[in-house]
Amino acid sequence: MSHIVSTSYGSGMSFTSHIDSHTLKMDTSASDGGHDTAPSPKKLMLASLTGCTGVDIVSILEKMKVPFSDLTITAIAELSEEHPKIYHHVKLEYRIKMNEADKPKMERAIQLSEEKYCGVMAMFREFATIETTLEILAN
Amino acid sequence: MSHIVSTSYGSGMSFTSHIDSHTLKMDTSASDGGHDTAPSPKKLMLASLTGCTGVDIVSILEKMKVPFSDLTITAIAELSEEHPKIYHHVKLEYRIKMNEADKPKMERAIQLSEEKYCGVMAMFREFATIETTLEILAN
Repeated sequence: MSHIVSTSYGSGMSFTSHIDSHTLKMDTSASDGGHDTAPSPKKLMLASLTGCTGVDIVSILEKMKVPFSDLTITAIAELSEEHPKIYHHVKLEYRIKMNEADKPKMERAIQLSEEKYCGVMAMFREFATIETTLEILAN
Repeated sequence: MSHIVSTSYGSGMSFTSHIDSHTLKMDTSASDGGHDTAPSPKKLMLASLTGCTGVDIVSILEKMKVPFSDLTITAIAELSEEHPKIYHHVKLEYRIKMNEADKPKMERAIQLSEEKYCGVMAMFREFATIETTLEILAN
């Protein structure tokens, strides 16, 4: 199966990606010659990672019939200093509101995403170390 | 240096990422339980790749004072069949309108992005083979 994304240059450092029926704008900060009108290309990697594992978590908790709300996933990624600059370490912080008794199910959901389902995390693991933390917010 | 992206769950399979001062919505197709209201998380990896190398190409051509227009970069990525599904091969198609005589400069720009500057491409190279093609559109 192929995924196709086509990206066109606009002006300055701004680009528009065509992703299926959607469009997505990218730009860079002023220090990289852009005008900061949209997310920078590299940081989309982190949106991709958090969204991919997020979809897994929601799917798995729904299958387990575990009630939850207020799920957020934060990626804190360390960038190497020399070109080409890559993310060599990522801390993924999962926060979720649920019954404390369901914490083991959430831990299992994270583990399944990490080890089995999340393709983006599998790709990240080829160039970065990944650390995960979980915080359960009281219902 | 750290890059931080925080992503919150909405409803269905939709998530919103906070990237610096920008917000970015993600969703999945119906086959993955979503409503296709925004790009899927995994495909953002391809937007990231095309945008990253695009920024390099524009910077380098500007430094070389090479006139161009209509730059597009298309990523055609092959997804593996088993979970976790990763992009194992990516074809990057560069298209640009410029004087044919400047083609070697464009080839050099692509090479510099591939080998030196594009961090996203360096990350991709850890899990995928990457093939590039260049088409010069007549001015």
